[in-house]
Amino acid sequence: MLLPSTEAVNAQTLPATSTSSVLSAHRVAVVGVGVVGQLLIRLLRDRGLARESLRVLARQARGLSVDGEYIEVEEVSPEGFEGCTLVFFAGGEAKEGHLGPAAVERGAVVIDNGDAFRLDPSVPLVVPEINADSLAEHRGLIASPNCSAIQLAMVLAPLARCAPLRRVVVCTYQAVSGKGRAALERLDAETRAVTTGAPLPSDSPFAEPILGNLACDWPYDDGGHTREEVKVIAETRRILGQPTLRITATTVRVPVVNAHSQAVNVEFERSVSLAEAREALRVSPSVVVTDDFPTPQRASGTDTVSVGRVRPDKSVPDGLWLWSVCDNLRKGAALNAVQIAEELVARGLLAVPR
Amino acid sequence: MLLPSTEAVNAQTLPATSTSSVLSAHRVAVVGVGVVGQLLIRLLRDRGLARESLRVLARQARGLSVDGEYIEVEEVSPEGFEGCTLVFFAGGEAKEGHLGPAAVERGAVVIDNGDAFRLDPSVPLVVPEINADSLAEHRGLIASPNCSAIQLAMVLAPLARCAPLRRVVVCTYQAVSGKGRAALERLDAETRAVTTGAPLPSDSPFAEPILGNLACDWPYDDGGHTREEVKVIAETRRILGQPTLRITATTVRVPVVNAHSQAVNVEFERSVSLAEAREALRVSPSVVVTDDFPTPQRASGTDTVSVGRVRPDKSVPDGLWLWSVCDNLRKGAALNAVQIAEELVARGLLAVPR
Repeated sequence: MLLPSTEAVNAQTLPATSTSSVLSAHRVAVVGVGVVGQLLIRLLRDRGLARESLRVLARQARGLSVDGEYIEVEEVSPEGFEGCTLVFFAGGEAKEGHLGPAAVERGAVVIDNGDAFRLDPSVPLVVPEINADSLAEHRGLIASPNCSAIQLAMVLAPLARCAPLRRVVVCTYQAVSGKGRAALERLDAETRAVTTGAPLPSDSPFAEPILGNLACDWPYDDGGHTREEVKVIAETRRILGQPTLRITATTVRVPVVNAHSQAVNVEFERSVSLAEAREALRVSPSVVVTDDFPTPQRASGTDTVSVGRVRPDKSVPDGLWLWSVCDNLRKGAALNAVQIAEELVARGLLAVPR
Repeated sequence: MLLPSTEAVNAQTLPATSTSSVLSAHRVAVVGVGVVGQLLIRLLRDRGLARESLRVLARQARGLSVDGEYIEVEEVSPEGFEGCTLVFFAGGEAKEGHLGPAAVERGAVVIDNGDAFRLDPSVPLVVPEINADSLAEHRGLIASPNCSAIQLAMVLAPLARCAPLRRVVVCTYQAVSGKGRAALERLDAETRAVTTGAPLPSDSPFAEPILGNLACDWPYDDGGHTREEVKVIAETRRILGQPTLRITATTVRVPVVNAHSQAVNVEFERSVSLAEAREALRVSPSVVVTDDFPTPQRASGTDTVSVGRVRPDKSVPDGLWLWSVCDNLRKGAALNAVQIAEELVARGLLAVPR
């Protein structure tokens, strides 16, 4: 990769948490070896969660190199989950062939990064810093939210503790890595082509060039939303436990390799001082408040949501703006899923209720 | 330039308007030869406004090539405006050494693209499609608004004819060309460097890399706004003639060469149907409404504001979202200034009132 690569980003190691030794005794599987799947493998190892016992599964058997180490990828099948305690689904595979429920039936707890079960009332949708308590109700399947919903909920949850939220308007500036490996390769190829005249493959995950351009993912629903907007609104409400919270969103893809950005406008039901809002964010776990403009290049590879430009919005009585940046592959996806596992271990919940 | 260049963009010719022959009889000067200044020269020629009689002035005398033609650039001075009927200031020079008023004192009408006089109540701030009538009051100096304010006003003016606006929230995705030639060259150099390893100059108009990143221009005011946000709010209000209109903004620079984008959220005071809003935009001069997502790469080089994704916002009773894209150098700057001149000619106002 010519642009700052996700490989480099992901190579950063993380301190192992106190749950490591417990979880490493379990048999863990990862389904999917795209950008999120590979990062899951890396995080599980770096955090000491699955050193010896990691199985890697995908739609097709293949060999894979992660950080220079060869990994045998097996073809995923319901039977393959036999003996697994914990299964991570990195992409959309949990719904395919009913694989997620099949793993649960075989005794595994499933943490699904896909979107199939996120709005299922019987499946907890969890951001550990916000609603880990909902894990107590799990029946085997647990969903990790959409990257943009995690990022938004991570700032709204602390703010909602200051005062009830009246309305939230969010515009996103989303990185290419959120669209997967083919999108990253396309951005890379376009960057090469514009400089060296290297030939550009005719197929692209984007309708137009993404280098030096903006994109908006189809399809729209009947209300004119993108799929991402629908997810941000519905999932953020569910994570916050506020099913009627007024949220509206415009989601846009920008030519940034990794880390999503959000401009978030919040109206409160009553007055909240800037100091109070900043303090609520500052003391919130995995949130870092800065005085500057956090950029995606600096946020990429970090495990926190960086918040800057917290300032009043004078167009309403009790309004506030902030700017947040979050590594969409880490806290927005793989890291959140791993944190859910760590939380399950810490709470003694790593077994399917019978 | 490796990325789609503003040179290429600006080379597109435009149909001359009916006012051409009138204005070409006047002695016209352009002050400033940055990206906007050079585009002004091109537009004045392409539209037949200043074929023989164009003087080009700048802080320092120099030679300049525009579209392969050599132009003698003279050093700007108050005396140099002697005999000029019309003077365009491309950048910030109108305030320096009182040059704008000096040109007016010598009998020239001044159209200023800089920001020095935009909030001066004695200076009309004009987007011809919206408030050309205010030109009747001019006293020699006329201001062309900030690019983002023009773009926002161009969509709000038609919508305000449907129903009074209650509140406007706008997030911008602004192109690098709006920050001038050095910024464009930096984006170009970074693109080369990442591909070829070409050395990167140490100085940059940006605090961080702009390729594959986002930026936010300092400084902030006491309220935490960027300069651009202050301009968008104050100038849009003035163009619309609504000094207390509730507007709030977050402005962001994206790694796009040319054409600004805006996600605009509008609340009306009463119900406006989507069809009504779309029709108001559709019949508005210089606005093009599409069913898709207009991108900056397609909008660059066009003379209109492209509007897409007009859709309801269900988070408020009478809300609407839209996405707009506008060539910030053309309609956002040089073209708007030239259109002001054409309007002055058409209205017989091309003389300083005595």
